Amino acid sequence: MKNKIILYDTTLRDGSQGEEVCFTVEDKLLVCRKLDEIGLDYIEAGWPGSNPKDLEFFERATELKLKNSKLVAFGSTGKAANKPSVDPNLKALLAAGTPVVTIFGKSWDFHVREALKISLEKNLEIIAGSIKFLKKNKNKEVIYDAEHFFDGYKANPQYALKTLLAAAESGADYLVLCDTNGGSLPEEIGEIVAAVKKSTNVPLGIHCHNDSELGVANSLAAIAKGAVQVHGTVNGYGERCGNANLISVVANLQLKMGKKCLSPERLKKLKALSRFVAELANMQPFTHQPFVGDSAFAHKGGVHVSAVIKNARTYEHIDPETVGNARRVLVSDLSGVSNIVYKAEELGIKIDSHDPVAKKIVQHIKDLENQGFQFESAEASFEILIRKALGKYKSYFNLISFKVTDTKVPGVEHAQSEATIELEVGGQRELTHFQGHGPVNALDLCLRQALVRFYPSIKDVTLLDYKVRVLPAGLGTRSMVRVLIENSDGQGVWNTVGVSENIIEASWQALVDSLEYKLIKDKITPHG
Amino acid sequence: MKNKIILYDTTLRDGSQGEEVCFTVEDKLLVCRKLDEIGLDYIEAGWPGSNPKDLEFFERATELKLKNSKLVAFGSTGKAANKPSVDPNLKALLAAGTPVVTIFGKSWDFHVREALKISLEKNLEIIAGSIKFLKKNKNKEVIYDAEHFFDGYKANPQYALKTLLAAAESGADYLVLCDTNGGSLPEEIGEIVAAVKKSTNVPLGIHCHNDSELGVANSLAAIAKGAVQVHGTVNGYGERCGNANLISVVANLQLKMGKKCLSPERLKKLKALSRFVAELANMQPFTHQPFVGDSAFAHKGGVHVSAVIKNARTYEHIDPETVGNARRVLVSDLSGVSNIVYKAEELGIKIDSHDPVAKKIVQHIKDLENQGFQFESAEASFEILIRKALGKYKSYFNLISFKVTDTKVPGVEHAQSEATIELEVGGQRELTHFQGHGPVNALDLCLRQALVRFYPSIKDVTLLDYKVRVLPAGLGTRSMVRVLIENSDGQGVWNTVGVSENIIEASWQALVDSLEYKLIKDKITPHG
Repeated sequence: MKNKIILYDTTLRDGSQGEEVCFTVEDKLLVCRKLDEIGLDYIEAGWPGSNPKDLEFFERATELKLKNSKLVAFGSTGKAANKPSVDPNLKALLAAGTPVVTIFGKSWDFHVREALKISLEKNLEIIAGSIKFLKKNKNKEVIYDAEHFFDGYKANPQYALKTLLAAAESGADYLVLCDTNGGSLPEEIGEIVAAVKKSTNVPLGIHCHNDSELGVANSLAAIAKGAVQVHGTVNGYGERCGNANLISVVANLQLKMGKKCLSPERLKKLKALSRFVAELANMQPFTHQPFVGDSAFAHKGGVHVSAVIKNARTYEHIDPETVGNARRVLVSDLSGVSNIVYKAEELGIKIDSHDPVAKKIVQHIKDLENQGFQFESAEASFEILIRKALGKYKSYFNLISFKVTDTKVPGVEHAQSEATIELEVGGQRELTHFQGHGPVNALDLCLRQALVRFYPSIKDVTLLDYKVRVLPAGLGTRSMVRVLIENSDGQGVWNTVGVSENIIEASWQALVDSLEYKLIKDKITPHG
Repeated sequence: MKNKIILYDTTLRDGSQGEEVCFTVEDKLLVCRKLDEIGLDYIEAGWPGSNPKDLEFFERATELKLKNSKLVAFGSTGKAANKPSVDPNLKALLAAGTPVVTIFGKSWDFHVREALKISLEKNLEIIAGSIKFLKKNKNKEVIYDAEHFFDGYKANPQYALKTLLAAAESGADYLVLCDTNGGSLPEEIGEIVAAVKKSTNVPLGIHCHNDSELGVANSLAAIAKGAVQVHGTVNGYGERCGNANLISVVANLQLKMGKKCLSPERLKKLKALSRFVAELANMQPFTHQPFVGDSAFAHKGGVHVSAVIKNARTYEHIDPETVGNARRVLVSDLSGVSNIVYKAEELGIKIDSHDPVAKKIVQHIKDLENQGFQFESAEASFEILIRKALGKYKSYFNLISFKVTDTKVPGVEHAQSEATIELEVGGQRELTHFQGHGPVNALDLCLRQALVRFYPSIKDVTLLDYKVRVLPAGLGTRSMVRVLIENSDGQGVWNTVGVSENIIEASWQALVDSLEYKLIKDKITPHG
């Protein structure tokens, strides 16, 4: 296909080198399924020779039955150039049983001398020997990663090219040029790719790191000069400053540079892919992430907001829907009345912009934000706040008291948590007591149990996420805690916020908003 | 100066549009002082016409007495082209009393028609009239921001140029080309800057946004083609996906492109600047941030680690110290024995790599990481763990029991927290009871009070930061909570970790490690 760019994902291998990133074998299988569904061409899923987790993964990967993607096992060139068949690393690569293997070798003379401590000639033999050995398996596709290629080329272009040609002549299917230390500039990358392209007919790939905040730009520069395969990781995860972010690379190639990577329907899954991988990698989604972050099309400043409302193209470089994202208008202390009116309308509540209540709401939000509240990611709490201001809110229950206790005693390994709540609904008192896994869990169980007799649909609500942030002391003499809660009832997802210097109380506020929001949403009439 | 690039910081204006970013007036004054100390040429600190906080800032800014930087007030061109003197926005700009003002105007015909809803000719008059009016103040420097310049140029190059020339002919000191929607590619930016440079002698600036993850690359491309002033924000804060990250721009310009931005001594303050602004903006420092992030020179993978130990240049694109950063070797489940040995040595503990205890420690760390522990950012807990494994640890006290209670009762606004601890030190029992601001604070007070009689130096320890992360359910049937605590004794800073499904218990673990670490550090002998 003309202009087709081959996508090579290494989230599960190079990405998993990222500090904090940690995938279980089960996670890896799930990520493979998702990448296959979206149609990435290659999935580099591990280094079978380097750790037992990856060995187990490749054993279980046979159950995957990928439809669109080819699975890749990664490893290094063999150390014994003359006897690759006994090299444990190469043997592990074959044992992985994948249709594709990628091996890396040294391109930088400095590295050969300083890190490998072998002769330059010997290094060429190792590259050639390893690839020839792997290519004896007729159906095996072999990709060659030229580690530190750009640094190597800048230091000694002749030798760097020789290492590539050794791989090409030995049967490598792709030659991938790696900016391993992430220190190159887009112009250098472009020039060197163009020079290499003149020396070989084997198709070229590009593998960039983000140490200079240029990972995406460097990848695009290589593609512009003739590379046809691009390596990267979802969300740019990876060691140090990460790999080139494949999400941004794909979006730019396809939406800005006229290249073909994914069908438009699959491109719309980029945001979902980003979130899915973040969850499994146990990373907070980066709200400001280009293209797919929650803030990528969020408008805050007054001038921007009024212009966006007039015509989206004025402040958006692409249509957010092309990558599965959506526009958001934010509520914040830079907001004016027009934001509040727009936001309320989005929630189905009509406010006239000349109504003094709109100004009152703006002021109230500013006061709460000064205390540490944040409504940008707690729209359910915001809706309740607006309803209260407009007199469109009636409480579903009254709290009389709660008590939460954590006790650690001799002979018992873990602390025990229990909570007691007394509340009143429509004149009736309800007292509940629960033990929980931690104090917030105990409180949550008590509150739900106390309410479910009066409002049965509460039982459909499940807590999806619970986040805690300690706010800097600047906001007061003691540090405040902000709790954000995400709930779902199977139909929708909503977020609420609570702020207090006491984490239990902040959690309580967010829990109450969460359950009341469910009842408001279902149009349940309060008792009493 | 040859190759000098003028640095223009807009963290306090454009950066403060970022979702979650929020500066008080006091914060803004502090940031100005820091930017001045580092020697940024211009500090754009607010939009006096748009909000009262900025008005107050400029009133108080007179007390700043900047040594290196010029303070800039930002605003829009006047709406009444024929009567700029009555335009409230322009009046507010002058009232700010800064040596420099920057005003933005429209370059994109589409925007003039759709957003401003005026004629193209009228827009030119507005630009010219506003600048002439400001330049009547002889000593005032006026910078013109051409909003949406690149989109405008792509749509209608003649008109976009006309708007620039209107500003140039009216006396603007700089013409700044803005990629307001952040949708341009580096090549386009370079070509357009080169074309503009042929049309005017007024020096050019570049102002990029990061919506395509190309903010840094686009800024560099403009400088390469002749722009001499670069706009950006510290850490890339800003609306949507942020502005060009000035930290990375400066580091690349100076260390890679041979431009002059800051003296080498000042360049070493980049990491401190990044941290300082993150703290004041109430943003978590981004560990993977290029150049200045804690992970930017952190090595995890086994191959990398052994190579880095041999020769740093093999896996580092620059010397971390040039930007005030440092190398780190990480402890993680990808680590082998060599990491543990290196890490322990860094902590002053010698382990032989053939000693079976090293393998045992690796396994123990893997087990704990599976439970949710993370030692990469909790080196004090890691040191205690190593000491325990080596038999070089003796407990400073034994916990007998604790009890923490949070109560909310009628008539009292906030929940009350109290804690009781019973522990034993060298055969003596100690019972303490405290009320606190929240349960963790109450527990912390109890523990310190119980220990201080036996270990007086405990009183020097202050809690700097307390972070909570709820781990995804994947790690167990119920969600686990990870607590990270940062403490200081005025001499040093250390971090500890605790993990449990109960936040109180996780906090307890981290608190205990924190105080024990202080005593180990001070070489205090345990009682009993």
